[in-house]
Amino acid sequence: MMRSVLLLRAARRVLRCSRFTVTPAPARHVYSLQSIILPHVPASSSSFSSSFSSTPTTGQSSLSSRSHTCGELRSSHVGQEVTLCGWVQYLRQDLFVILRDFSGLVQVLIPQEESQRELKDAFCGLTVESVIKVKGRVRLRPEGQRNTNMSTGEIEVCAESLDLLNTCRKLPFEIKDFVKKSEALRMQYRYLDLRSAQMQHNLRLRSRLVMKMREYLCNVHGFVDIETPTLFKRTPGGAKEFVVPSGEPGMFYSLPQSPQQFKQLLMVAGLDRYFQLARCYRDEGSKPDRQPEFTQLDIEMSFVDAAGIIALIEGLLQYSWPEDKGTISTPFPCLTYKEAMKDYGVDKPDTRFGMKLVDVSETFQHTQIEFIRNVIAHPGGCVQAICVPDGAKHLKGKDMEFLKQTAKTQFNQDVDCMLVKAEGSIKSPLSRLLPDTTRLQLLLKMSAKAGDLLLVAAGAQERVRPLLGKLRLQCAELLEGRGVPVRDPSIFNFLWVVDFPLFLPKEDEPEQLESAHHPFTAPMPEDAHLLYTQPHKVRGQHYDLVLNGCEIGGGSIRIHNAAQQLYVLENVLKEDPSLLSHLLEALDSGAPPHGGIALGLDRLVSIIVGASSIRDVIAFPKSFKGHDLMSHAPSLVPEEELRPYHISVLWPSAKHGRDNKP
Amino acid sequence: MMRSVLLLRAARRVLRCSRFTVTPAPARHVYSLQSIILPHVPASSSSFSSSFSSTPTTGQSSLSSRSHTCGELRSSHVGQEVTLCGWVQYLRQDLFVILRDFSGLVQVLIPQEESQRELKDAFCGLTVESVIKVKGRVRLRPEGQRNTNMSTGEIEVCAESLDLLNTCRKLPFEIKDFVKKSEALRMQYRYLDLRSAQMQHNLRLRSRLVMKMREYLCNVHGFVDIETPTLFKRTPGGAKEFVVPSGEPGMFYSLPQSPQQFKQLLMVAGLDRYFQLARCYRDEGSKPDRQPEFTQLDIEMSFVDAAGIIALIEGLLQYSWPEDKGTISTPFPCLTYKEAMKDYGVDKPDTRFGMKLVDVSETFQHTQIEFIRNVIAHPGGCVQAICVPDGAKHLKGKDMEFLKQTAKTQFNQDVDCMLVKAEGSIKSPLSRLLPDTTRLQLLLKMSAKAGDLLLVAAGAQERVRPLLGKLRLQCAELLEGRGVPVRDPSIFNFLWVVDFPLFLPKEDEPEQLESAHHPFTAPMPEDAHLLYTQPHKVRGQHYDLVLNGCEIGGGSIRIHNAAQQLYVLENVLKEDPSLLSHLLEALDSGAPPHGGIALGLDRLVSIIVGASSIRDVIAFPKSFKGHDLMSHAPSLVPEEELRPYHISVLWPSAKHGRDNKP
Repeated sequence: MMRSVLLLRAARRVLRCSRFTVTPAPARHVYSLQSIILPHVPASSSSFSSSFSSTPTTGQSSLSSRSHTCGELRSSHVGQEVTLCGWVQYLRQDLFVILRDFSGLVQVLIPQEESQRELKDAFCGLTVESVIKVKGRVRLRPEGQRNTNMSTGEIEVCAESLDLLNTCRKLPFEIKDFVKKSEALRMQYRYLDLRSAQMQHNLRLRSRLVMKMREYLCNVHGFVDIETPTLFKRTPGGAKEFVVPSGEPGMFYSLPQSPQQFKQLLMVAGLDRYFQLARCYRDEGSKPDRQPEFTQLDIEMSFVDAAGIIALIEGLLQYSWPEDKGTISTPFPCLTYKEAMKDYGVDKPDTRFGMKLVDVSETFQHTQIEFIRNVIAHPGGCVQAICVPDGAKHLKGKDMEFLKQTAKTQFNQDVDCMLVKAEGSIKSPLSRLLPDTTRLQLLLKMSAKAGDLLLVAAGAQERVRPLLGKLRLQCAELLEGRGVPVRDPSIFNFLWVVDFPLFLPKEDEPEQLESAHHPFTAPMPEDAHLLYTQPHKVRGQHYDLVLNGCEIGGGSIRIHNAAQQLYVLENVLKEDPSLLSHLLEALDSGAPPHGGIALGLDRLVSIIVGASSIRDVIAFPKSFKGHDLMSHAPSLVPEEELRPYHISVLWPSAKHGRDNKP
Repeated sequence: MMRSVLLLRAARRVLRCSRFTVTPAPARHVYSLQSIILPHVPASSSSFSSSFSSTPTTGQSSLSSRSHTCGELRSSHVGQEVTLCGWVQYLRQDLFVILRDFSGLVQVLIPQEESQRELKDAFCGLTVESVIKVKGRVRLRPEGQRNTNMSTGEIEVCAESLDLLNTCRKLPFEIKDFVKKSEALRMQYRYLDLRSAQMQHNLRLRSRLVMKMREYLCNVHGFVDIETPTLFKRTPGGAKEFVVPSGEPGMFYSLPQSPQQFKQLLMVAGLDRYFQLARCYRDEGSKPDRQPEFTQLDIEMSFVDAAGIIALIEGLLQYSWPEDKGTISTPFPCLTYKEAMKDYGVDKPDTRFGMKLVDVSETFQHTQIEFIRNVIAHPGGCVQAICVPDGAKHLKGKDMEFLKQTAKTQFNQDVDCMLVKAEGSIKSPLSRLLPDTTRLQLLLKMSAKAGDLLLVAAGAQERVRPLLGKLRLQCAELLEGRGVPVRDPSIFNFLWVVDFPLFLPKEDEPEQLESAHHPFTAPMPEDAHLLYTQPHKVRGQHYDLVLNGCEIGGGSIRIHNAAQQLYVLENVLKEDPSLLSHLLEALDSGAPPHGGIALGLDRLVSIIVGASSIRDVIAFPKSFKGHDLMSHAPSLVPEEELRPYHISVLWPSAKHGRDNKP
C-alpha cells in the first residue's frame, strides 16, 4: 500500500509537470521573443504548488497562469517581469494594447523594433475582447504620459510575448460602461453585460457582504448554517407558489416562499441559532422589479426577545457594511406603525427627507368649504397636508396634474395644490374660500414659506394618509427630476418599524380577520389577553427593517405555545388547523421561545450599490415576464416528457373544448 | 430630523427596557427565591447591548436569556451565578434535574429545604423534554459524586429560580442516542430526532466545514460567491429534471442538475473565480440514499489547468478538515482510469484495503479446462482473480453462494471460489482440473496463504473487472460482518482518478458515442487531433475525486473554443447544436480557458462523520420514495389551483379513457 502511494505521488508530479502544463487552447498561437522555459515544479508535497511558473500561492492570482491582475500594477512593480491574462479593451495607434480583467485596465506597450515585427503584427491583429496572455516587464510611463484617472496610470508593461488564448468573433455591443444598451440586449448577452465594471463591482460587493455576514453569524455569535428543503408541501391557497409535479399522479411539491416552518422546527429541534442564505420562490406573474426566485438571509434564534434580534441585525449590518460606503451607526431609530402612518403615511418611510404629513383639521374647523366641513364631521374624517419646500418654484403645471391624477386614480381622492406666494398669499382654486386667519394658521402650521407647495387632502384618515405618503414620494422624485436634490443617495437611513397590528380585516370580507404578516407571529405580551375578546386590537411582536424607504427585512417573535397557536388558527383566522398539524405537534413537544427575521438580500445589495433594479445585483435575472432571455427559459416540453409526471397541458383553445360533445 | 432621531433612540431604549424584556410565554410561571431585578440597559449606543441581564456580547450565549450553555460549565465556573435554558433530560430521585442543550448536559440540584417547597414542587412536576430557564450558582459536586464520563461532571448548579418556558406534552420516543427508532418515526418527528447528540454533531460539523471552505475560497484565493438560477431551461431529453410549469401554456422551467452552463458563462463574463454552495435537483424516483435535492460545492476558474484545480481542492480540504478528524496529507495519490480499472475493477476504488485484481490468464494458458481455454482464445478474454486474506477461514458457504449469486445476476458470469488449505492445496470444484504447476503458479501470483480465499473469473475483460471489483467490496463487507476489520473507518483515503475516455459507446447503440461525463469536457491536448479521426480514443481532461471508495467530486478543463465545441456536439455526439446556441455564441465572444469541479457536499460530510446515509447529514431529508414524512409532501393540489399553470392531472385510469369515444 505505502509503496503504491509513493509511486502514485511520483506519477502525480510527472502528470503535473508534463501533461497539464500545456494550455489546451486549440486555436492557440504563441509569439515569443524568448523561448518560454517552464521551471520544474519543486518535488515538495506542498498542496499549493501549481504547474504555473510565477504564480503566487494565495490571492487573486494563485494557482493560475497569471502572476498579477491587470489592475493591481503600480510604480512599486517597476522592473518586475509579470504575466497578465485578460481581454483586449482596445488598441491605440498600433502602439498600445489596453488590457482588462476584473480588477481594471493596464497599458501594454507593443514592441516597435523591426526585429520584433512578428510580435508587433500579432498584437496589431488582435480583435477587441479577444483573450490574451502577455508576458512583459513593468516600467514607469515616460514623463507627461502618466494618466492620473487610471489606477495603473503611472506604469505600462513592455510586452515580450503574446499568447492568443481565444479570439473574439462576435460582439453585439461594446464593453464600456458608458455605452447604453437596451435591457433586452443586456439580458440576451448577459455574459457580456457582466463584464462591465459596474456589474463586476456589484456582484463582487455582494459576495464580500455575504461573506462578512456569515463570519458575523458563525464566528461571532455561534450560528449554524443549515439548509432547508425547497421541494416542500403546498400551502393551501398559496397562490404564489410554483408547483412541481412528482412521479405520483396528482401529487405536487411546491417551491416555498420562505423557510418559515422549517426554521421554527429547527428551534424545536434544539438547533438554537440557525441561519441560511435561502433561495425563495414567488410566482407573481409580471410585477416590475420582482424575480421569481430571490434570496433572503434567514435567521432564527431561541431564548431571545425582539431586542435581541434587533441588536443582532444592527451588529450584523455594521460588521458587514462595505468599507467604502461609510459607517452606519447603531442603534437604528425606531418608529411604531402608528407613528410611521401618522408622519409619513406609509409603514416603510424614507426618512432621508422631511415633508411629513401634518393634520390641519383644526385649521379648517370653521371653514366655509362645505365639502371639507362634511368630511370633518364624519368620524375618522380629517384634513391633512404636506409642504413641499420650493415646490411652487420648481414644479410645473403638468407635475401638479400628475399628482392630482395619482390621487384620483389610485385613491379616488381630490387633492388641492396650493402655491405659496411671496406675500404669504396662496394660489389655489380654494384660495378665495380661505379667510386670512385660516390661511395664516395653515402657513404657520405647515412652516410654509414663499415658493413652497402645499398639498392638501380631506377625507377618511385611512385613505388620506397613504395618499399623501404616496404624493410625498412622487414630489421628491419630481423635484429630483428638475435637478433639486431631495434624497441624498450616499446616506443610508435604517429604521425599525414596530407595534404592527397582529390582524387586519380581509379586504373583500372586512368582518373576517387575516394575519398582518403570518399566523405564527406572537402577540405583544400585554395584548395577549385581547386575543380572546378583541383580536383586532392586538399588536404583534413584529419588526420591520426599513432602509431609505424600502422594506428590507421583517421578522417577529413567534408563538411557541401550541394552545395559543391553535386558537389563532382556528378561532381568529378560521383556518383548518389540521394542515399545520406537524407544527402544532412540534410546539407541544418542548418548543423553546424563539424568534427571527429575514432580510431581502437582493434589495439590500441594490440599495447599497445604488442600482435602480435588483436585476443589477443578480448574475442571471429573469425579465419582468419571468423569461431568461439568454437561454430562452421557460420553454416547451414535449408531451411524452410530461407523462412521467402525470400531467398534460391545457392549451387555451382546447380548455373549454374538452367539455364539448362531438 | 436630528431631533426626531434622538427621540426615537430614547423611545427605543424604553422599548428595549420595558416592552420586550418580558418573555412572552403564555404558559409561563416564574417560581423564584429572589425577586428578579432586571438591570437597566446602559444608555450607550452599543449595538450589542441586549435586554437580557448577564448575557455575553459574543459567542453562543450572546443576545439571549442564558448566560452560559449547559455543556460549557467546568470547575472554573464555581461560585458564578448562571442562567441556563434547555430541555429536561430527566429527573433523578426528586434531587436532580439533568438539563440539556445542544452543548451537552448539566446537573441541576433541586433545593430540598422546606422553605423552598414551592420551587421544589415546581421542579418535581416537570415533564421530560419540557423547556425551562434555571438560575443558580455553580458549585463543585461533593467528593465521590463526580462523574468523569460527563464533561460537566465536576460541578452542579444549585437552582435558585425556575422558569417553565414550555411544557412538553407529546413524545413519541425518548431523546437518547441509544434508543433505536425506526427510520419512518425519525422522519415523521424529525424535530425530535434532530435533538440527538449525533444529529446535532453532524449538522454543526457540516456548518463549520462549509464556513471554512468559504473562508478558504473567498479570503485565501479571492473567489466570488455567485448565485445562479434554479428555474432554468429544460435540457432536451433531461429525463431526470423536475419540471416547473410557468404561467404560459405549455412553457416549463426545469430545476437543473447542476449550474454547469451558468458557471461556464460566468467565466466568459470575466468573473474568473466563481464558487457556490449550489442546490441541485435530480428526479431519480426511489433510488436508495439519493435525495431529489442535494448540495454541491461548485467551483470554476479561468486561466487554470487541471493541476491548478487539483491543488486548489487539496488545499481546500486540508484547510477545512475538522480538527478532531486528524490531518490529511497532500498531494492526494492519483490513478489513471486504466490503472483503477486494472487494479480495482472500478473507477472509484476504495484504497483503504488491498485485494487487488490480478490477471492470471498466463497461468491458465495451457489449461485443460475447456471453458477457460475458449475464453482466453477470444480477443479481450482473460482470467482474473482476487485473493481474500483469511477469506476461507471466516466466510461461510452461504457467503460464497451470495458472491456467486451476485456474479450470476448482476454480471451473468461464473466465479470460482477456491479455498486455500494448509498444505497449499485448493478446495474448489475445479481443483482436480488444476495441475500442480498451475496451482502453485496461481498461489504464488496471488501471494495466497493457507486460509485465504481466491475468487477466479474468466471472461471478457470489460465484464470480469467490474465483477471482481464488486466482489472485492462485498468480501470486505462480509468479513467486517464476521468481525474481521478490513476498512479502517477512521482513515480517509483521498484519490484522484484521471485520464478518463472522453466518449463512450452508447449502451443501446454501440455505434454511437456519448460523453463519458458531459459534452463540455476538453480533450487532452495531445489527443485533440484524434477528435476528427478516432474520437473513441480521445482522453478527456477530466478528474474525479474519490474518498474511501465514494466519488465525492468530479470536474474538468472545459472546451473554450467555439469551433471545437460545435464539432463535438454536431459531429461526434450527433446532437442539435442550436439548443446550446447561447453557449456557443458565448465561446465565440472572448471565452477564457477555464475549468472547474463540483464536490458532493452531502456525501463528503456523511463520510467524515461516519454516517451510514446522507439523510443523517441533511436537516430535513426526503424518504427514499421522495416523501417528506413530517409535512406530507408531495401532496394533492386541487384542479383549480393548477389552472393558472395550464396543466391538468392525467389520472392513471383516465389516461387512456380520453381517447375513448362515448
